[in-house]
Amino acid sequence: MKKFVNEVENILTESLTGFGKAHSDIIDVRLSPDFVFRKNKSQNDKVALISGGGSGHEPLHGGFVGYGMLDAACPGQVFSAPTPDQMEAAANEVHKNKGILFIVKNYSGDIMNFEMGADMIEHENQTIIVNDDVAVEDSTFTTGRRGVAGTMIVEKTVGSLAETGASLEDCKIFGDHVNKMTASMGVAFTSCTVPAAGKPTFELSNDEMEFGVGIHGEPGRRREKIKSANQLTDEILETILEDLKPDNNQEVLLHVNGFGGTPLMELYLLFECGQKLLEKKNIKVSRSLVGNYTTSLEMAGGSFTVTKLDADIAKHWDSAVHTPALRWKM
Amino acid sequence: MKKFVNEVENILTESLTGFGKAHSDIIDVRLSPDFVFRKNKSQNDKVALISGGGSGHEPLHGGFVGYGMLDAACPGQVFSAPTPDQMEAAANEVHKNKGILFIVKNYSGDIMNFEMGADMIEHENQTIIVNDDVAVEDSTFTTGRRGVAGTMIVEKTVGSLAETGASLEDCKIFGDHVNKMTASMGVAFTSCTVPAAGKPTFELSNDEMEFGVGIHGEPGRRREKIKSANQLTDEILETILEDLKPDNNQEVLLHVNGFGGTPLMELYLLFECGQKLLEKKNIKVSRSLVGNYTTSLEMAGGSFTVTKLDADIAKHWDSAVHTPALRWKM
Repeated sequence: MKKFVNEVENILTESLTGFGKAHSDIIDVRLSPDFVFRKNKSQNDKVALISGGGSGHEPLHGGFVGYGMLDAACPGQVFSAPTPDQMEAAANEVHKNKGILFIVKNYSGDIMNFEMGADMIEHENQTIIVNDDVAVEDSTFTTGRRGVAGTMIVEKTVGSLAETGASLEDCKIFGDHVNKMTASMGVAFTSCTVPAAGKPTFELSNDEMEFGVGIHGEPGRRREKIKSANQLTDEILETILEDLKPDNNQEVLLHVNGFGGTPLMELYLLFECGQKLLEKKNIKVSRSLVGNYTTSLEMAGGSFTVTKLDADIAKHWDSAVHTPALRWKM
Repeated sequence: MKKFVNEVENILTESLTGFGKAHSDIIDVRLSPDFVFRKNKSQNDKVALISGGGSGHEPLHGGFVGYGMLDAACPGQVFSAPTPDQMEAAANEVHKNKGILFIVKNYSGDIMNFEMGADMIEHENQTIIVNDDVAVEDSTFTTGRRGVAGTMIVEKTVGSLAETGASLEDCKIFGDHVNKMTASMGVAFTSCTVPAAGKPTFELSNDEMEFGVGIHGEPGRRREKIKSANQLTDEILETILEDLKPDNNQEVLLHVNGFGGTPLMELYLLFECGQKLLEKKNIKVSRSLVGNYTTSLEMAGGSFTVTKLDADIAKHWDSAVHTPALRWKM
């Protein structure tokens, strides 16, 4: 296994410790139970936003803890749900007496453990389930649609709303709304290797791709020969637009997300393909984000995410953010 | 070849076009000859900083164009030097009558073409040659040491100095100084595939690594069995410290750079290994940067860069920067 690692069982602890030291101006890391939380806590009473999920998708979620986004993140082992005691400890650390909002990707294990975590805390709480992946209904670890790269868009926009002092109920409603306005789909060229397994999760031959792959390597719609970037863009965006049914002249945020093993050069090329295609359909890309934000370890491939923008979503996307992985206007 | 691509010969053009659209708030892209330049030009008279080199190392250099860093970047084809007409066109676009400072990584092709570019312009100009890679003297494309991930540290700090209105000579002297205070070394677990070649640049067996690899896959010191992250850190940092000869209690910037195909989780683990080792040697890591900044397409592996900090370097590292790939305090 070709990885920077000492003992496989210590990967998460060592990585989190390094993460904490590298970003000690913004976040702090607590171990056993593990969670990442804001160091300079907000002065305002605000709803506390907590996300989490299996590790291996970095910078999601720990990289999005900070002003304008999350208050805490609970990382599980690689591709494994965090345990309820992590959510309990994080909630007790960051709550501000305005309630806790959990943001959870739609995987059965995550949902179960976040529910148990919610039961263990005394603070009022609500949960947003993100299920933006339009590739398949039901999957290896999911009932319904999977939560993928759209999750960070929910975290950014709801994080911004929470910063204004909005109520728990308003944050919950807005997050559900952003989730509904968001759709994603991706393609994998290679598998990744989960450290504890020591071998690739799945095999693809030299000219094959997994079309509609999940961020843990779950099967997509079909396995087929690799196509050109334009053809892939066309098929993925058609599926996304069928779901979102945008109006003519709809403004959108277009997010091209790399899964970890694809060069930035290709991701910008993919963005160009997507932007051109949407323009042809009279859809206006007025916001953009290109890069590795919701990864699958070193998997090669990437995904498109489209969010239909209204004035509120645009405002909360544009607002100031200061986290390890996303920073603007500060 | 598993890449997001339409026609191989158009990769750079399509990628640059997408890059320009995705970051149209900060930069603009000119094609034929290709260069990236600041959109909102500085109001101040300042030395114009221009870098460039082969593509495939993104976000270096185009991702570092913007306030506090570069004025322009000239991307060559993948792993190929830009042509002199690119430097000429960029210089004519961004010069502010205070002279041009070229920042060039030490590869024979880059140096030759930047020299020819400099000859073609009328503006006063100087060149900083970055050669921070302590792995080997002379290499496939280099006489002397190679320029690698330390280049962005030179670009950040000299970019900050230039923003204050410093003279061309002062910027040149400071850049040479930062280069001398900086040393890097890396290791590759896999090769990358240059699109035009269509196959991996070199072969490594399943348990092998290239120790001291260059950012184009040039040979390092030796090929050997993969070691633990702690052992790799130890050997790399020993080599770097032999070169830098830091004093007791020296403050440093520690940069862990991913080559493109290694997950962020491993890079933070590597940072933890490096930070611990330096602490044991009474070297204080007071600044840090972890991520994919100087890549080799999808190569798995990464590098350490250490810069010895004095008050000036620390100040110009900490100052505001606003580019596609690096943003803080703005």
